[in-house]
Amino acid sequence: MSNSSGQQGPLYLGIDGGGSKCRVVLVTADNQLLGEGLGGPANPLRGMKVATDSILTATQQALTAAGMTFNDMSRLIVGAGLAGVNMPQYFKLFSEWQHPFAAFHLTSDLHIACIGAHDGADGAVIIAGTGSCGLADVKGKLLDIGGHGFPYGDNGSGAWFGMQLVHQVLLSKDQLIAPTLLSDLLAEAIGTSATLDIVSHFMHATPTVYARYAPLVFTAAEQGDATALKVVQQGAAFINQIALKLFELKPPRFSMIGGLAYKVVPYLDAAVQQQITPALAAPEFGAIWYARQQQALLNSAKTAIVN
Amino acid sequence: MSNSSGQQGPLYLGIDGGGSKCRVVLVTADNQLLGEGLGGPANPLRGMKVATDSILTATQQALTAAGMTFNDMSRLIVGAGLAGVNMPQYFKLFSEWQHPFAAFHLTSDLHIACIGAHDGADGAVIIAGTGSCGLADVKGKLLDIGGHGFPYGDNGSGAWFGMQLVHQVLLSKDQLIAPTLLSDLLAEAIGTSATLDIVSHFMHATPTVYARYAPLVFTAAEQGDATALKVVQQGAAFINQIALKLFELKPPRFSMIGGLAYKVVPYLDAAVQQQITPALAAPEFGAIWYARQQQALLNSAKTAIVN
Repeated sequence: MSNSSGQQGPLYLGIDGGGSKCRVVLVTADNQLLGEGLGGPANPLRGMKVATDSILTATQQALTAAGMTFNDMSRLIVGAGLAGVNMPQYFKLFSEWQHPFAAFHLTSDLHIACIGAHDGADGAVIIAGTGSCGLADVKGKLLDIGGHGFPYGDNGSGAWFGMQLVHQVLLSKDQLIAPTLLSDLLAEAIGTSATLDIVSHFMHATPTVYARYAPLVFTAAEQGDATALKVVQQGAAFINQIALKLFELKPPRFSMIGGLAYKVVPYLDAAVQQQITPALAAPEFGAIWYARQQQALLNSAKTAIVN
Repeated sequence: MSNSSGQQGPLYLGIDGGGSKCRVVLVTADNQLLGEGLGGPANPLRGMKVATDSILTATQQALTAAGMTFNDMSRLIVGAGLAGVNMPQYFKLFSEWQHPFAAFHLTSDLHIACIGAHDGADGAVIIAGTGSCGLADVKGKLLDIGGHGFPYGDNGSGAWFGMQLVHQVLLSKDQLIAPTLLSDLLAEAIGTSATLDIVSHFMHATPTVYARYAPLVFTAAEQGDATALKVVQQGAAFINQIALKLFELKPPRFSMIGGLAYKVVPYLDAAVQQQITPALAAPEFGAIWYARQQQALLNSAKTAIVN
């Protein structure tokens, strides 16, 4: 990473703000990577202060990596894809943020993921991470599925798998289902197997906390545990449903992204698996693409007004 | 209700403290009802201040109804069955409460429900209210099932049914399942049918909020809605499982209690339905029974020490 404190011209910052963490990348006008940063959750549902602190912390890291300072924030043209801003009240809240940047172009995390995966071209994505959702962007038509939140939505997500893990372990503790390897894996992970300790541990659990334990369900399924396998199949069936719905728009490309994607993919229908194409870029680079596109629209609008 | 401000001798207060509300009854030594009261949630998981305020408010009401004053609190021998105190840390917190009563005998809400339903005799109960749980108390053996909390537990409870309602409506909005009457009933109940409004409405919903909408699932099922019927059958199957587990202890009596019980019962297996016997008394009277029993044990222990 070059020291670019002398860098002239516009700089672009791409933000991928999820419910658990936020990633930023800083690039030059000709797309040279200057720095990266990582912050906490940037979902406004957790409060604007938490979200904006996460974004500023990650941005500061990227600037430092680039040999720049806090004052350079005012030079940044930002594209931000944030979880939660698909809800009008949160979009409004974030639009009114007195940000320190030159420009702040806001959209959803799902949108920048789709842009990144297909380099701005038509396509569809499913994110299977802490939450689950899908988007198809084909011929100007957007189809948005799921991502409504936990626990009434987000089936097949990390939060859902983690919650199911706890659910199945407690059923087994109550001897309502047969013993399962999930109990041993959870006991190992949290250091206790007592029912009341498990309940204490998850009593106020956020989706992020549940999602941390999701991989254990796949571990148990891979070892042939019947209970785990049933949960995996249920979760995968839900992701499969989202995919089939997105395919109705006939997207030319389709990517599966998010921390749980590589775990879930092997359990999807063959017909869905065959459609998967690799994501071309990470969501934060989708955010950069979005910033450039929105800035260009803005500039051409200004030009139109001036002319 | 007689004016009993001149009442002499011990007075007993029974408290049924749930996650949504707390009910108290005030009786004389010979079990004459003097007054009743109703307060907010008395579950220590919501905070000790809320819980103790709820108890004191309801107690004050009962004292007022009995023509007594706040000062008479110090005369009350209290039996309290509270949700959440099955967890050691909350039992400890409540045991350390500097209460204003003559005595405070603490146990779980499930325990007093079982005592009340069978008038202190052996038996089993299932509570299907905001949460779901079961207890069998047979020949000195206690078997405790479920009640671990929401969303990882409490299947077949009001919270679970309400959450499933929102889940199914959102699946239908995303066209992942067929249209369902549940959407119309929910729209009518919350005054909007827009997806984002539904999500906003339930985003931070507590189990109590979800439980409020549970009856809609039964309404739709009764009108033949296939989605609702499937949810009802799933919830009932879970309650059924709890019942069969409790029956292993061969309880001589079995009661179904809680706000959702009468809705769920018709969907239980015939073999379970046939075992149901009416509850002999409400949980708050079970709490009175418990207070008397514990006080008698305490008094006989004191007598033993004196002798």
